[in-house]
Amino acid sequence: VAKSDTPGSGGPPAVLEAVAATVAEVAAGAACIGIGVPGPVSPGSGRMGPASNLTGWTGVVDVAGPVEAAIGVPVAVENDTNAAAFGEHRQGAGVGSDDLLGLWVGTGVGGGLVLDGRLRRGRGLAGEVGHLVVHPGGRRCGCGGLGHLEAYAGRNGMEREARRQHDAGRETLLVDIAGDGRMKSSVFLAALERGDDLARELLEESVEALAAAVASTALLVDIDRVVLGGGFAHRFGARFAEQVGAAGGGLLGGQAPEVVPAQLGDHSGALGAALLALDQYPRQV
Amino acid sequence: VAKSDTPGSGGPPAVLEAVAATVAEVAAGAACIGIGVPGPVSPGSGRMGPASNLTGWTGVVDVAGPVEAAIGVPVAVENDTNAAAFGEHRQGAGVGSDDLLGLWVGTGVGGGLVLDGRLRRGRGLAGEVGHLVVHPGGRRCGCGGLGHLEAYAGRNGMEREARRQHDAGRETLLVDIAGDGRMKSSVFLAALERGDDLARELLEESVEALAAAVASTALLVDIDRVVLGGGFAHRFGARFAEQVGAAGGGLLGGQAPEVVPAQLGDHSGALGAALLALDQYPRQV
Repeated sequence: VAKSDTPGSGGPPAVLEAVAATVAEVAAGAACIGIGVPGPVSPGSGRMGPASNLTGWTGVVDVAGPVEAAIGVPVAVENDTNAAAFGEHRQGAGVGSDDLLGLWVGTGVGGGLVLDGRLRRGRGLAGEVGHLVVHPGGRRCGCGGLGHLEAYAGRNGMEREARRQHDAGRETLLVDIAGDGRMKSSVFLAALERGDDLARELLEESVEALAAAVASTALLVDIDRVVLGGGFAHRFGARFAEQVGAAGGGLLGGQAPEVVPAQLGDHSGALGAALLALDQYPRQV
Repeated sequence: VAKSDTPGSGGPPAVLEAVAATVAEVAAGAACIGIGVPGPVSPGSGRMGPASNLTGWTGVVDVAGPVEAAIGVPVAVENDTNAAAFGEHRQGAGVGSDDLLGLWVGTGVGGGLVLDGRLRRGRGLAGEVGHLVVHPGGRRCGCGGLGHLEAYAGRNGMEREARRQHDAGRETLLVDIAGDGRMKSSVFLAALERGDDLARELLEESVEALAAAVASTALLVDIDRVVLGGGFAHRFGARFAEQVGAAGGGLLGGQAPEVVPAQLGDHSGALGAALLALDQYPRQV
């Protein structure tokens, strides 16, 4: 395993150079390489669309080309949450099921959908559960839409709402503990343990919003498993998955979707990207 | 074209006998027969699960067997809203698109999902958009769940809400016009035209709920077309599809899904069932 920091300047070329250098450390003898990226990927193109989380990635960027040129083997590129869902499907909490939703709750909310054992890509946006409409006309999402899951269940959306209510005069340990710093998962946990009302409300709203997304997805495409992962979900543990599953069953009127914690942690994305690369570039036997 | 009424008594055997008799009127020379049924169908089984709209259909019923025995050709059975979506996909408002949601708004709300040119069935419940959760914890649906699309957009759900508010003391032309009779689409139209506030509110809530379902579906499976049909939608015309599409775009923050009126009317289900039967029992050439 090799890791490196994302260069803070230099834009896409600098990032891709760093990616190639890091991959080169572990890629000796590889027949192909899979890369998961934090943005939409036009299926099979090796290119990533605009990524709001990366500075300077405002257009479509060829990711596969420069890395292939540097390493000399074929490169497959996939959206990172799609890759993570595929990794859990093949070797994690999704083994034994042909259909699953991978639901990643961290700073934001991402997802990936596996149907009949294949990743559902559409034109590259499928599985973007963070922007499912769970409260029509509700809280504004970072993307500009209204009432999206991510505005209720992502750490960023929850922090925004906590600070809004605090600015409007409401007392909360969340701001007392976080101060001007980021309101991390540990801050939510600490405030909860000390009985903070707002922290409890925000968590309940998060579980309810996730449950609505899980229930709607399970019904719409008729899947039998939801794998719940991501930093925030991981911090709250198996009980969080149970709560989301139970609340989803309540919203559906009984037919509870099975919600299970992810098993592969941070490795699901890399593993899924590698497995997808092997599908795209099968080894010559 | 042949039609007959559903026998009011005798349960499944009487209904299937009437179906076989009606099919026999038009089936001379047919290589196979497709039947759309108002309940869930376990894919490829020819059997239908419990149907809440038909008296006495509380268990799993073999639909294909008795009709095959009576007519002498293979019979394919599919859920009727799935079949209708497939019909519109192949020969109606979905031609030219590999992916679509068929959304049928009438007494209730049904749907069917076509992905990559194939009907998405799952275990037989895929496409059941009427029970998407659009208002977590909201109005109780006929199925027992909370906040489902059908409680806001189906004619039955809208009538239930209108009578509830009327019983609580609210004046509305909806009840004045309908009296103790069914609150048909024409009643909603007449009340709207005469400026009834509750009728306007219920219609707005219906459009918003449909828009949320359309936006969430378009995003989750990344489809480029939604075909809107059914008796209620048909009565309100092309403007209804435009309103749902525009509202869906607003909820997504701009990326408007294309919502178009269905083109095949009542024939979409029969046509889709026939096309699916031809897929299941290809003609020997």
